[in-house]
Amino acid sequence: MVEQVELHRGLRDVFFDNTESSNVIGDIGRLIYRGYDIHDLAEKSTFEETVYLMMYGALPTQKELDGFDKALRASRAIPAEVLTIIATIKDAHPMDVLRTALSALAAFEPEVDDVSHEATLRKGIKISAQAATIVAAHHRIRIGEKPLDPDSSLNHAGNFLYMLLGEKPDDDTTELMGKDLIVHLDHGSNASSFAARVTASTLADLHGAVVTGVSTLKGPLHGGAAEGVMKMALEIGDDANVETYLAGKRERGEKIMGFGHAVYRAEDPRARHLREGSRVLAEKKGEPQWFQILSKVEEQMRPYAERGICVNVDFWSGSVYYLLGIPEDLFISIFAIARVPGYVVQILEQQKANILLRPLLQYVGPHDLVYTPIEQRG
Amino acid sequence: MVEQVELHRGLRDVFFDNTESSNVIGDIGRLIYRGYDIHDLAEKSTFEETVYLMMYGALPTQKELDGFDKALRASRAIPAEVLTIIATIKDAHPMDVLRTALSALAAFEPEVDDVSHEATLRKGIKISAQAATIVAAHHRIRIGEKPLDPDSSLNHAGNFLYMLLGEKPDDDTTELMGKDLIVHLDHGSNASSFAARVTASTLADLHGAVVTGVSTLKGPLHGGAAEGVMKMALEIGDDANVETYLAGKRERGEKIMGFGHAVYRAEDPRARHLREGSRVLAEKKGEPQWFQILSKVEEQMRPYAERGICVNVDFWSGSVYYLLGIPEDLFISIFAIARVPGYVVQILEQQKANILLRPLLQYVGPHDLVYTPIEQRG
Repeated sequence: MVEQVELHRGLRDVFFDNTESSNVIGDIGRLIYRGYDIHDLAEKSTFEETVYLMMYGALPTQKELDGFDKALRASRAIPAEVLTIIATIKDAHPMDVLRTALSALAAFEPEVDDVSHEATLRKGIKISAQAATIVAAHHRIRIGEKPLDPDSSLNHAGNFLYMLLGEKPDDDTTELMGKDLIVHLDHGSNASSFAARVTASTLADLHGAVVTGVSTLKGPLHGGAAEGVMKMALEIGDDANVETYLAGKRERGEKIMGFGHAVYRAEDPRARHLREGSRVLAEKKGEPQWFQILSKVEEQMRPYAERGICVNVDFWSGSVYYLLGIPEDLFISIFAIARVPGYVVQILEQQKANILLRPLLQYVGPHDLVYTPIEQRG
Repeated sequence: MVEQVELHRGLRDVFFDNTESSNVIGDIGRLIYRGYDIHDLAEKSTFEETVYLMMYGALPTQKELDGFDKALRASRAIPAEVLTIIATIKDAHPMDVLRTALSALAAFEPEVDDVSHEATLRKGIKISAQAATIVAAHHRIRIGEKPLDPDSSLNHAGNFLYMLLGEKPDDDTTELMGKDLIVHLDHGSNASSFAARVTASTLADLHGAVVTGVSTLKGPLHGGAAEGVMKMALEIGDDANVETYLAGKRERGEKIMGFGHAVYRAEDPRARHLREGSRVLAEKKGEPQWFQILSKVEEQMRPYAERGICVNVDFWSGSVYYLLGIPEDLFISIFAIARVPGYVVQILEQQKANILLRPLLQYVGPHDLVYTPIEQRG
């Protein structure tokens, strides 16, 4: 007989550890990185500084930031062999290419199996820089262009846009991309960071744990919504069509992309920083209709906010990427570029007080079956 | 103020779902696959039949088994591009190469993002066959030999040994390798299968979830002990040295490799099938000393069995691999070859009644920190 046990399906209500890195307070829509509100960081900080804060636990002095930024810039190049691997599988989904290339980087990492704090941190800084290079290089290769060398005069966000699109972005655009990366950096026990921790908990190496994170982020229940929002905006086409479009969706009982979140019951605090950027960018690009359409969708959806179905981060990030001329199938990869340093932070935290993450399954299958020879089966 | 919550570190006592695939009964040392005792399967079944049982839920008729075996054999080849990728990173750890090559296979899989049961099963059968080919091909390439084409006259275990070592194994050896793969196939909620489920729970694709599994298996707390046992046997060198060696280990408070298990408090039921195989193989290879040494270690360790520190599966599998002439750094990869179909089984089960696996972290970091401009930090 099977003893009945309490099941925690999805583990939604189970705390598996303490953290000092990020805190998602879903009911009031707050996101905290190491004690700092995401709004302060998005408005006042830079991506480099925020990554430093997350990896080292405190905001850097100018000297510390300079050293860290220098290390990041110096790490951007990827081995020619990894570029060859990317070219070999160039027609695959960008997330499959990113996952494969990150995995291959392990082959060129002399400290690959060193799970000490120092080595993991060194490798973590490097892979955070390299992830952006992989995504950009893959895109160049698949459109028949030569991958561009990183430009060390540009910061992480600016250099990524340059390597991806072949043009140095202006300051506003660089800043907007930096904000986007800041707000996507970490998010409590999200599924992909948790999966990366499970891998790290066996004392597997950093590259393996980051690969796990990227594998997990690819799933539509996790990383996949920004793509859908812009598809919706394109389907709507004009802000005069918003009401009819939403009414049709409601009638057919279909979900509206970019609304609702597993944790937030209030407005996703990450959305507002991309909303303003999207507005400015749409004006600048001479395509204000996308901002108008999405604003109207947001306005029409306001009544649902009371039921906790609010705008999420994907709602505005999709239009930002679109206006920057980034193809839709790269949207998750940009999320990944921002989240890779977040995985590093959580992997470091897991290693610091490691315990193997191994929950239980309740066996409810058959018992004591007798093995019959194959001739006797029918 | 932080509300105090109950922490489940390691999730050791938490049941996250039901399963019908395998059942580990640690206190009495039993392992069940879909109702059948592992002893029956190891003694009477074949790897192909056991994989069928696990994937489809029931033992096959002869006709079903023939069809399944045919599909497995037909799936062994890997694209030339993946062979090129393997060659590009041939000097990396075999698990890093396996992880990268499995990830790259996604680029050649037309159904890659189809998470339906049927597509996942089709891809799962294919990747189970291909994993063995990758490990063998990589080894051939790194020793400067051409990878061998799969031989469809051989079964899965026999063909793997043939592709790896360049010689068709005899029937006893093929059977022993088959047993080894059977006992390593699945093992309840082990860390790597759990990680694969987390990835699958975002509706990510099979390849990503299997890559997660392999990334996680690589960790020394999970897949890495078979290597250590044979190192120990080589260090001991002669069975006359066993007592002195163990006494030294005890004095220095060091662990004896191949003993103890996270779940088993009795003898690991997987060990006995490899023990007998190791004995016969050692005789045949004219190297009986390894079996004698390990038997004596086992005997000397018997008093610890009362405290639940018993022989585990790695204790005997390492000597089997060694006697077959397989290099030590491939031991985990062989574990992976056996476990990949196990991941497929658990991924299918996760997809069947999916819920996003997303436990919680308790934030214990600082609160309400004020962002100071960088010039004011010191």
